Amino acid sequence: MTTVRIAGAGLTRFGSSPDRTGRDLFAEAALSAREQAGIPRDDVDEITYGNFMGELAERQGHQGPIMAEAAGLDCPATRYEEACASAGVAVRAAVTAIRSGRADVVLAGGMERMTNQETEDTTEFLAIAADELYEVRAGMTFPGAYALMQRAYLEEFGGEREDFAHIAVKNHDHALPNEYAQYRSAISVDDHLDAPMISDPVGLYDSCPITDGAAAVVLCSDAYADEHGIDAPIAITGTGQGGDKMALHDRAYLNRTPAADRAAEEAYADAGITPDDVAVAEVHDCFTIAEVLALESLGFYEPGEAVSAARDGETTKDGSLPVNLSGGLKAKGHPVGATGASQVAELFRLLSGDHPNSDYVDGTVGVTHNAGGTVASAVVHVLEVVA
Amino acid sequence: MTTVRIAGAGLTRFGSSPDRTGRDLFAEAALSAREQAGIPRDDVDEITYGNFMGELAERQGHQGPIMAEAAGLDCPATRYEEACASAGVAVRAAVTAIRSGRADVVLAGGMERMTNQETEDTTEFLAIAADELYEVRAGMTFPGAYALMQRAYLEEFGGEREDFAHIAVKNHDHALPNEYAQYRSAISVDDHLDAPMISDPVGLYDSCPITDGAAAVVLCSDAYADEHGIDAPIAITGTGQGGDKMALHDRAYLNRTPAADRAAEEAYADAGITPDDVAVAEVHDCFTIAEVLALESLGFYEPGEAVSAARDGETTKDGSLPVNLSGGLKAKGHPVGATGASQVAELFRLLSGDHPNSDYVDGTVGVTHNAGGTVASAVVHVLEVVA
Repeated sequence: MTTVRIAGAGLTRFGSSPDRTGRDLFAEAALSAREQAGIPRDDVDEITYGNFMGELAERQGHQGPIMAEAAGLDCPATRYEEACASAGVAVRAAVTAIRSGRADVVLAGGMERMTNQETEDTTEFLAIAADELYEVRAGMTFPGAYALMQRAYLEEFGGEREDFAHIAVKNHDHALPNEYAQYRSAISVDDHLDAPMISDPVGLYDSCPITDGAAAVVLCSDAYADEHGIDAPIAITGTGQGGDKMALHDRAYLNRTPAADRAAEEAYADAGITPDDVAVAEVHDCFTIAEVLALESLGFYEPGEAVSAARDGETTKDGSLPVNLSGGLKAKGHPVGATGASQVAELFRLLSGDHPNSDYVDGTVGVTHNAGGTVASAVVHVLEVVA
Repeated sequence: MTTVRIAGAGLTRFGSSPDRTGRDLFAEAALSAREQAGIPRDDVDEITYGNFMGELAERQGHQGPIMAEAAGLDCPATRYEEACASAGVAVRAAVTAIRSGRADVVLAGGMERMTNQETEDTTEFLAIAADELYEVRAGMTFPGAYALMQRAYLEEFGGEREDFAHIAVKNHDHALPNEYAQYRSAISVDDHLDAPMISDPVGLYDSCPITDGAAAVVLCSDAYADEHGIDAPIAITGTGQGGDKMALHDRAYLNRTPAADRAAEEAYADAGITPDDVAVAEVHDCFTIAEVLALESLGFYEPGEAVSAARDGETTKDGSLPVNLSGGLKAKGHPVGATGASQVAELFRLLSGDHPNSDYVDGTVGVTHNAGGTVASAVVHVLEVVA
C-alpha cells in the first residue's frame, strides 16, 4: 500500500490575533508548510481543511475555496467539521485520498478564530459541539460536561483534584520553549489549586484557553516523494476514527472514551504497532481529565491508572512516555478546528529533531489523539520515522 | 480497482416539515436506504454526511454522531460542508473510502432544515456560502449573484429571458409524478414570465425553493456485494471535484463554471467515458442559469449553446438527453446539505427502473452535477449499470 509521507508542516503562533482574519491565519500556516515541503503549487491535488464554528464566529461557511486561495493554490478544497476533531478528520481524509490513488499531494490543515467576540459568545458557540436538544437546552457547557466526566472518574477510581494539577503543570512546562505556544509561562500545583473553580472539580487551570490559530501539513505519496527527490522520512502509517453517542447520558461510560478506544485500535492495526511501540504522544487535553482518558484509551494505562501518570513523572518530558511536549491544548492553545492538524505538525517537528523539545523524544514512533465534543468523535494517527 | 456499488437509496419527501428535527429527517432517509440495501447494521463501517447551515438553523454543530444514532448505526460519522455541494463531497468521500480499502460499506447522505425560521433569516444564512468579506458585506445574496451570471451570459451569447422559462417549465413537468418532490404542479412559460422579478433577470420561477429534506445512499465494494449476495447492478464509476475562486469578481468568467469543467473532466476520466456516453443527467439548477452552465461544463453543449436546450426539447423527458427527471432543485426542492446525495439517489432510481420517470431513460450511464455557492465548488459523479 502507498505510504503517506509528511513533506512539510506550518503553524501560526497560537493566541489572540484580533487584527487577523481566518484566511490570513490559514495562509500563514499553509504557506509555511508549502515552503518547507518545496513542492510546486501545481502538484498539490487538493486541500482538506478543518473548521468548527466559522459560520458563527466569522459568518463564513464554504471556507474551502477561500482557504485554497489563501494558500495560493488552485485546487479543490473541502471543509470537514467534527467539532474539536475537525482537523483530525481532515488529516485522515488526506491520508485516505492519497492511499486511494485519488491524489499524490494533499495539503491538510485547519483554522479557528475564537477571540473576535465576547467570551460568553464563544462559550455558547462551543456548546454546539454538544447535543442541542438534550444537553445544551438543559444548560450544558463544556466545562460542565467534563466536570461530570471527572467526577465519575474520581467516584469509580479514586484520586484527588491535585493529581490533575500535575497535568496542567507538566503541559505548561513543556510549552515554555515552544515558539508557537499561547502560554509560555510556568505554573505550580499551588497555582492550579488556588485558581478559580469553573465547574467543580474543573478549575481554571484544568481548562484549555480560547485561541486563534491555524495549522497545516503537506502530505504526499512515497511514489511522489521518490520521483521528485522529496526528503520526507516521516510517514503517517496509521489512521483511525471512532464514534460514540453524542449526549453524555446516552453513553455506556462517563469516565471512559470508547470512541477513542476504537480510533486507537484501528490506527494501531493500520500501522501494525502496539502501544508499547509508542515513544511520544500528543493528546487532546482540552481539560486535564481529557488527557487522562486519552492515555487510557490509547492503551498506555488501564482505566483508572493514568490519573497519576503526570504526578509520577511518567508523562513529563523526562519520563518514559512524554505526553504533549508541544504544551498540549492546555498551554499551546486550542483553536478548535486547527488542533488535529497542529498535533500532527508538532509531532512531525518532534520526530524530525526540529522541535525545541525533540531531545526528549527517545524513539521513532508517535501518536496523535484528537477528540470532538465530549469524545463523541475521536481520531488517532500514528507517525513514524520510516527512512 | 474496487468498484463502488449502490446497494440502496432513501429520501424524505422534500418540502416544509415544521414539526420535524434534522435528525428525524435524516433518520427517515437513512433507514429507508438501509432497508433497501439489506446490509446488517454492524457491517456499515462509516457515515459521510453533508450539512450546510446546521450551526445557524438548528444551533447544532458536530452532527456526525447525532446522525449515526439517528440512522441506528454505531460507527464513525463525519460531517462535510461545501455549501450546496456538501452532500456531493460526502458521496465522493464515501467512494474514496471504499476504494482506499478503509471501508467496505459506507452510508453517504445529507440533510438540511431550512423552513424553521423566517425566510429573511434563511436568505441571510444562505449568504454565508458567498464571500463574507468581499461579497456579503456589499449586499450580495444568491439571487443577485446568479442574476449577474445570467446577465453576463445573455450579454456574451445572446438569448432571451423566455429561453430560461423553458427550463423551469420542464423541471416542474418532470416533478409531477415524483412522490418526493416539493412542487408537483405544472407551470407554463407565461406563469414564469408573469411571476415577480427577484433580481433582474432572475424571476421567482427561475429560483429553487427553500426546502427541508434528507437523502442517503448505501455504498459498498463489489467484493462485499459478491460475498454477501447483494444485488447491486448500479455503480458509481467516476467521481470528480473542482474548485474556483470564492468571490465572483475574482473569477476568470461570470458566465462559465470552470470548477464544474474540472469536476466533469476528472469524473469522466475516472469512469472512462465521454459526454456522448451519457443518457441522463441530474444537475444543480438552483437557478435556471445554473442548469445552462452545468450542461456546458458537463460537455453536452459548447459555451452559449445550452440556453436553448430545454426550449428545443432536447433536455425534456422525451428529448435526447433528459435533464433533471427528478424535477431538479427547481421543482423537487433544494435542502442544501442533502442535494448532492438526493441527486445520486434519484439517478440510482432512474437507472434502476424504480423511478416514475425511468421509462424516459434510454441508456445505462448517467451523471450528477452538484455545485457550491456560485460554483466555487463542484462535484460530478458518473453512475452506470454495470451488471
